[in-house]
Amino acid sequence: MSKLNLTPINWKFSERAEQLQSSAIREILKVTMRPEVISFAGGLPSPETFPVDRMRAAFDKVLAENGKAALQYGPTDGYTPLRQFIADSLSTADCKIVPEQIMMTSGSQQGLDLLAKVLVDEGSKILVETPSYLGALQAFSVYRPEFVSVEMDNDGVVPASVAAKGEGAKLFYALPNFQNPTGRTLSIERRQELVETCARMGIPLIEDNPYGDLCYSGEPLPKLLNMNPDGVIYLGSFSKILTPGIRLGYMVAPIPLIRKLEQAKQATDLHTSTLTQMAVYEVIKDGFLQEHIPSIRRFYSAQCDVMLEAMTKNFPEGVTWTRPLGGMFIWVTLPKHIHSKELLDEAIANNVAFVPGGPFYANEAETNTFRLSFVTVSPEKINEGIEKIGKLIKARM
Amino acid sequence: MSKLNLTPINWKFSERAEQLQSSAIREILKVTMRPEVISFAGGLPSPETFPVDRMRAAFDKVLAENGKAALQYGPTDGYTPLRQFIADSLSTADCKIVPEQIMMTSGSQQGLDLLAKVLVDEGSKILVETPSYLGALQAFSVYRPEFVSVEMDNDGVVPASVAAKGEGAKLFYALPNFQNPTGRTLSIERRQELVETCARMGIPLIEDNPYGDLCYSGEPLPKLLNMNPDGVIYLGSFSKILTPGIRLGYMVAPIPLIRKLEQAKQATDLHTSTLTQMAVYEVIKDGFLQEHIPSIRRFYSAQCDVMLEAMTKNFPEGVTWTRPLGGMFIWVTLPKHIHSKELLDEAIANNVAFVPGGPFYANEAETNTFRLSFVTVSPEKINEGIEKIGKLIKARM
Repeated sequence: MSKLNLTPINWKFSERAEQLQSSAIREILKVTMRPEVISFAGGLPSPETFPVDRMRAAFDKVLAENGKAALQYGPTDGYTPLRQFIADSLSTADCKIVPEQIMMTSGSQQGLDLLAKVLVDEGSKILVETPSYLGALQAFSVYRPEFVSVEMDNDGVVPASVAAKGEGAKLFYALPNFQNPTGRTLSIERRQELVETCARMGIPLIEDNPYGDLCYSGEPLPKLLNMNPDGVIYLGSFSKILTPGIRLGYMVAPIPLIRKLEQAKQATDLHTSTLTQMAVYEVIKDGFLQEHIPSIRRFYSAQCDVMLEAMTKNFPEGVTWTRPLGGMFIWVTLPKHIHSKELLDEAIANNVAFVPGGPFYANEAETNTFRLSFVTVSPEKINEGIEKIGKLIKARM
Repeated sequence: MSKLNLTPINWKFSERAEQLQSSAIREILKVTMRPEVISFAGGLPSPETFPVDRMRAAFDKVLAENGKAALQYGPTDGYTPLRQFIADSLSTADCKIVPEQIMMTSGSQQGLDLLAKVLVDEGSKILVETPSYLGALQAFSVYRPEFVSVEMDNDGVVPASVAAKGEGAKLFYALPNFQNPTGRTLSIERRQELVETCARMGIPLIEDNPYGDLCYSGEPLPKLLNMNPDGVIYLGSFSKILTPGIRLGYMVAPIPLIRKLEQAKQATDLHTSTLTQMAVYEVIKDGFLQEHIPSIRRFYSAQCDVMLEAMTKNFPEGVTWTRPLGGMFIWVTLPKHIHSKELLDEAIANNVAFVPGGPFYANEAETNTFRLSFVTVSPEKINEGIEKIGKLIKARM
């Protein structure tokens, strides 16, 4: 039987699909993949930090010892020993987390999608930081909420702004540690105020924490989750502390919500790879992260220092930027009249790239901002690239 | 900072989440996991067919030779060499499929979710077979369509029923080969008629084909995809021919639709595991499936024969069942007055289980039906279990 000669379908997408557009970042990344481009645009962790040999040994061990179970369908909420391990690692003296509160996801991006699926109706109010993580805005926008932007300063979200704007909100989405895109951290004083404000107003608080372990000095600040496990939904990820390509994350939520999320995940993709979960458990179960994470911190901290120093040397007065205490990003604010998208066009012509700030705003973009990532570029190239960007900014001052 | 004493959130789910319920099958599976139960309820492939050593060698090779790339973020549409391989394997003399038509997914279940996300509005009409695959009904129901059930007989879907009921439908979801749950195959004569009917009416046809390669004799029937690549969306999976626990499937669709699906996938989980895709490519690239699939066919065919023979011997007159030409399932129809859910309760008390037919119907369930799977139970246990069920049926005649 052969191909028939039929009229092609005229595709009509759902209303929600009309909201979708390709990430501005992914479009830029395509341009910046040319090897001659010095790219500060990526959000990728450095492959230098990937424990390839450990991962290889773990996959091998799991498949050798337990291959049939690792390759069979598994439970929707995930591999129990891994969930137990995560629960233990998130528990504090006065806040015990149990495995029943945890569901494994295909990256924490999936957690965002499932949360919106289960909690957001068309027109539901979602509070977001200003600016916010682009991937979250994308995930949520499919469900057609109303985004309300909450004020932020160098100490992170301003809790009074949540109180002023949050009435009736379905969710508040926050990235309290070394935020993507700004690199900012929510101060310890504000954490309690934010948690209390959201609880008082009945607003579930999403604590997205992919970078939280990557503090350059000291220890991570207390988690919002541990301050109010009944009102905070925590998203964790192995992408930045192990490797991202395996797509493994998790969410922690009150049990009635987890059960509903589990139903949603079952309908969405049944479960996350059994093999991947077992291999990651094998890698981390004996404390590997305690030795591995400090090496990532040292590496990223040194890279960040190189970039900050180069910026101080090359960026003219009138330009300001954040000084992150961890994570992967620096946020730059130009004088109002300079449009970072136009600057990017010139930069690309000069073989250097960054991400303009506009797409990170849910409302009223500040077009004089941009994001720099320093983790995948060598110190020499950081200096060269920042010098080029500095010259282009000066020419526009 | 310690846990605060705050009022817990009163969770209110989205309207779409209220549609969600746990799969009836998953609930039954929990009961049937007791080792003394002979379970024909599962939909799991037999782990005897998993090429564990091959998978182990492939993961090892990929991580040894290309570890950093395998563990890094990857493109949303998938690993290009694997997409090229799939495109080649689906191409026929007069229907060339190109990699740009293919997107890798986290199991074909994710394909169902993404298709509904991108094509279905509340109230959109979706045509489904009678009965249909429960996982598809679940995936679609989240988006609150109107299901319209299309007639089916032993030759599969009746195309005239599509013509009669399909006006204005957004989708027709079909499982033409060894359907789950009935084991039925759409006859070769009807394939062309169905494809033409859908094209004439402008209805996109989803061809879900997880079992298509598992024909017990001869070669698979022509794919609907190859008869009309402009109007058919094809869902493929490695779950039944390799292993399910890795969660790897793919969808083939016209390029404008694939681009929109790619945006939806990006917002949903960024991409499917790079490592898994590279390892599966390593397993299959030199023709392994051509030697492996026949061994699964022989194994399942022999298991099916054992069950059919036992049924002939033990089931009383008035009970009918399908005789599958491939796949994993037999569908049983009891006299009208016997409710298969009640029969199941008695069966479980006798340590044998199956899945009652009700949940597989989008509308007007025929409660005198049930599904049997024969692939994970030994021939001795098949005989023992069927004999028990036969006795229970006779007692109710």
